[in-house]
Amino acid sequence: MRHHTLLAVCLVLGGTAIAAAAAPSWPAIFLRTPPAPTRSAEAARAELASRRAAVLRAMGPHDVMVLYAAQPRVFSYDVDYDYRQENDFWYLTEINQAGGILVLAPSASPQAQIYMIKPNPAQESWTGHELSPAEVTATSGIESVHDVADFGAVTDHVPTGDRLLLLRGDRRWYPQEMALRDELARTHPELALGDAAPIFAPLRAIKSPWEISLMQHAVDISAEGHARAMALTAPGVWEYQIRAELDAVYGVRHADSWGYPEIVASGTNPTTLHYESDQEQIPAQGLMLIDAAAEYGHISADITRTYPISGKFNPQQAAVYNLVYDAQQAMIASVKPGSPAFGPIGDQVLITGLEKLGLITTAKGAPTPQQQLRIWYFHGPSHAMGLDVHDVGGIERRPGVIFSMEPGLYFRAATFEEDLPDRDAAAWQVFRDKVRPVFQKYKGIGVRIEDDILVTEDGHRVLSAVVPSKMAEVEARYAALHAYVQQHGGAPPLLP
Amino acid sequence: MRHHTLLAVCLVLGGTAIAAAAAPSWPAIFLRTPPAPTRSAEAARAELASRRAAVLRAMGPHDVMVLYAAQPRVFSYDVDYDYRQENDFWYLTEINQAGGILVLAPSASPQAQIYMIKPNPAQESWTGHELSPAEVTATSGIESVHDVADFGAVTDHVPTGDRLLLLRGDRRWYPQEMALRDELARTHPELALGDAAPIFAPLRAIKSPWEISLMQHAVDISAEGHARAMALTAPGVWEYQIRAELDAVYGVRHADSWGYPEIVASGTNPTTLHYESDQEQIPAQGLMLIDAAAEYGHISADITRTYPISGKFNPQQAAVYNLVYDAQQAMIASVKPGSPAFGPIGDQVLITGLEKLGLITTAKGAPTPQQQLRIWYFHGPSHAMGLDVHDVGGIERRPGVIFSMEPGLYFRAATFEEDLPDRDAAAWQVFRDKVRPVFQKYKGIGVRIEDDILVTEDGHRVLSAVVPSKMAEVEARYAALHAYVQQHGGAPPLLP
Repeated sequence: MRHHTLLAVCLVLGGTAIAAAAAPSWPAIFLRTPPAPTRSAEAARAELASRRAAVLRAMGPHDVMVLYAAQPRVFSYDVDYDYRQENDFWYLTEINQAGGILVLAPSASPQAQIYMIKPNPAQESWTGHELSPAEVTATSGIESVHDVADFGAVTDHVPTGDRLLLLRGDRRWYPQEMALRDELARTHPELALGDAAPIFAPLRAIKSPWEISLMQHAVDISAEGHARAMALTAPGVWEYQIRAELDAVYGVRHADSWGYPEIVASGTNPTTLHYESDQEQIPAQGLMLIDAAAEYGHISADITRTYPISGKFNPQQAAVYNLVYDAQQAMIASVKPGSPAFGPIGDQVLITGLEKLGLITTAKGAPTPQQQLRIWYFHGPSHAMGLDVHDVGGIERRPGVIFSMEPGLYFRAATFEEDLPDRDAAAWQVFRDKVRPVFQKYKGIGVRIEDDILVTEDGHRVLSAVVPSKMAEVEARYAALHAYVQQHGGAPPLLP
Repeated sequence: MRHHTLLAVCLVLGGTAIAAAAAPSWPAIFLRTPPAPTRSAEAARAELASRRAAVLRAMGPHDVMVLYAAQPRVFSYDVDYDYRQENDFWYLTEINQAGGILVLAPSASPQAQIYMIKPNPAQESWTGHELSPAEVTATSGIESVHDVADFGAVTDHVPTGDRLLLLRGDRRWYPQEMALRDELARTHPELALGDAAPIFAPLRAIKSPWEISLMQHAVDISAEGHARAMALTAPGVWEYQIRAELDAVYGVRHADSWGYPEIVASGTNPTTLHYESDQEQIPAQGLMLIDAAAEYGHISADITRTYPISGKFNPQQAAVYNLVYDAQQAMIASVKPGSPAFGPIGDQVLITGLEKLGLITTAKGAPTPQQQLRIWYFHGPSHAMGLDVHDVGGIERRPGVIFSMEPGLYFRAATFEEDLPDRDAAAWQVFRDKVRPVFQKYKGIGVRIEDDILVTEDGHRVLSAVVPSKMAEVEARYAALHAYVQQHGGAPPLLP
């Protein structure tokens, strides 16, 4: 899906009306996406202007920032993926078109100038509409729009003695910026070069009301996807088919795309954190773990749910599930402005519970409970969210920050038998010997529960609360969804 | 969708059985995809061995070919698109995993060796299964599998005096090969460098029976997509929603992905050849042009259909449609081994018809009819198809070649009024003046009909014939599909 421009903003208003009209006939358990948020073109331009002003304030008086639009990504040969703008360029322009260059300089007048490919009627009969200068201004609020053919050399835009700020990072993320840095180091060794990225991180970390409403909408689209996926989970269906149904929801509800390739992991596949192969047939037993979310308005949600393929947790699955759930709830409950790091809160719940189950041992000579926990829970509980699903900025407890909350437990046979740490081998052998009899009952179980948390002035809001996660509610929702599918021969059609 | 490995091949057998079992209840007009083609693992390895042998025969005795697996494509930051292997690497290995290097040398023993990332259990708990050497051999038939960490420098693999063949082409398609060429030119100016690509083009141009069956399956999945899209086309639906339904069919039917981003163009948007923005709401009148197809087994179909949004062609739409149809049928009818170029056959049908309609003028001083035709029909009638939707190889009339057949006519106001050729302006003014009164009745109409043609021993086969294109059949199919949707409240559910 492409070209989130002014046009798209206006059209959304019409789509909202249609979705709202059709909604009443939908069973509520399928979590039909509510209308998309809207705002005026003036409000959009005002927010972009205020972001540019904040960036300009954070720059030094003799800094010049040059941001390049993302290069199209090649699928194969002459076929590209749908275009997606570089995040910082988007953050300051909301222009989703290739070939542009944005120049910001506190000492220049005007301080913001943009260079865009000049629309060409002959080209447009081949590839579609390119934004005119008036449309660029109407979308971004930037008045000074030039033909990119006139951009010249980047050094032409940097007065002598000034510093050039380019994005810096992995060559995969910023291929043209990193190549340009190499070239400038050769050709202009006297030029001072700085990194633009650290200026954006603290600004992007705090979400505006509009960004929060976009995130909520991305979450709501994702929630409908999760409901549909649960309804259609059944032995014999293929994992990739569930993925296709998630994508269908995202597409019909006007998401940009997925925020990340969906993880649809059935049977023992949930024990792999980023299981993305989705090529297996759903077995009769075991769990289904779905880590999947949409991107809307360039902002990505991130939701994981785990439930039994049969619809009913068995005792081992229930024990693990409730432990992860309790850890997650304890961490979420702690979140408010200024609250301490929540990782240890979750760890304590998990350690206590795993000791009770016999999956962490306090036997003499064994590694510490904390070390043992890391065998079953080998990733962090949270990451910042926004324009990137793993966004810039830390997991700060400050109003306007959004982060994930995603503890998990994974009882993976290969890890337990072959991949315990090499250091302190004797201690790990104590662990292995003590825990193995209990582990036999739990192996193959993987559970993760992930919600999206907004820090508010007086606490927090769980943006993804509409997707049930309490065990009894999960089982009830599963039963209701499956009863519907049984009765109607399928999930409700997404269209018309 | 990832990892089309041996595992995927085996699993397809099960999927076929399920699809076949569910099929009888489906209305035939929705063109449910038939079972996927299957073959044994031995047959797969034999075909790959024979491809490698053909490449080795085409190489010089002192050539060494080094093929690199495709680098993952970045979506944003640490999120990649689903992995898709480089086509020539795939052609010789059918391994869809990053990080591999294939070395072929007629003078070496063994002649084919592959270097792969060594599976790491710790890594696999994060990102999933990596192929073991035994699995690499089972999939590709290549016995000599090494750890890519031991590959060393590429020059270590080229005996003194031998020539190194790397893929050469656009830096976007072969970024690592082109960067390596630059580096080798600096560090090893004595090394002879050649291009691997021309060796593949004539081999890939002729499709084997297995490749033809994959293409037929890609076409069949696409056909189901087109049926569903037609069924759901209605005023008020958004173009991107139709696109999402196409993608859902591809995904549920186990396509790799789309073969190219779908063109869903309603109203006057069909007059843009590659309209990919899909952000408009379908109007009450006008045409719908859908250019969309799936990739299956790494091979892409390519199908376009155009039909009235109302279900009934008006006289102008019908006149243009039938002209394009007649031109396409005349070109298709001519195809057999050794038949002449078909472009002129189609052009003649179109010129005769457009003259009759008054959209080409024979008035004194006007450009030639052929020149005028190019205003309304500004692209070629065909391209080779295969691993790339615009594949290597020409539009050869030789058995085993597959190409598209896609004439079109586009009556675009901007082109007619503002973008006629600058040369011979007086002649084009004659054209404009003579044709304008008729053009007023046709402007906004865009029609393309595209089918996929296999050249056979004794003629040709239209692989996409199952999607109706004759005007009366299009209208009848539209009526039947819409009657079904009216009666059932939607298209048949893709799952369960």
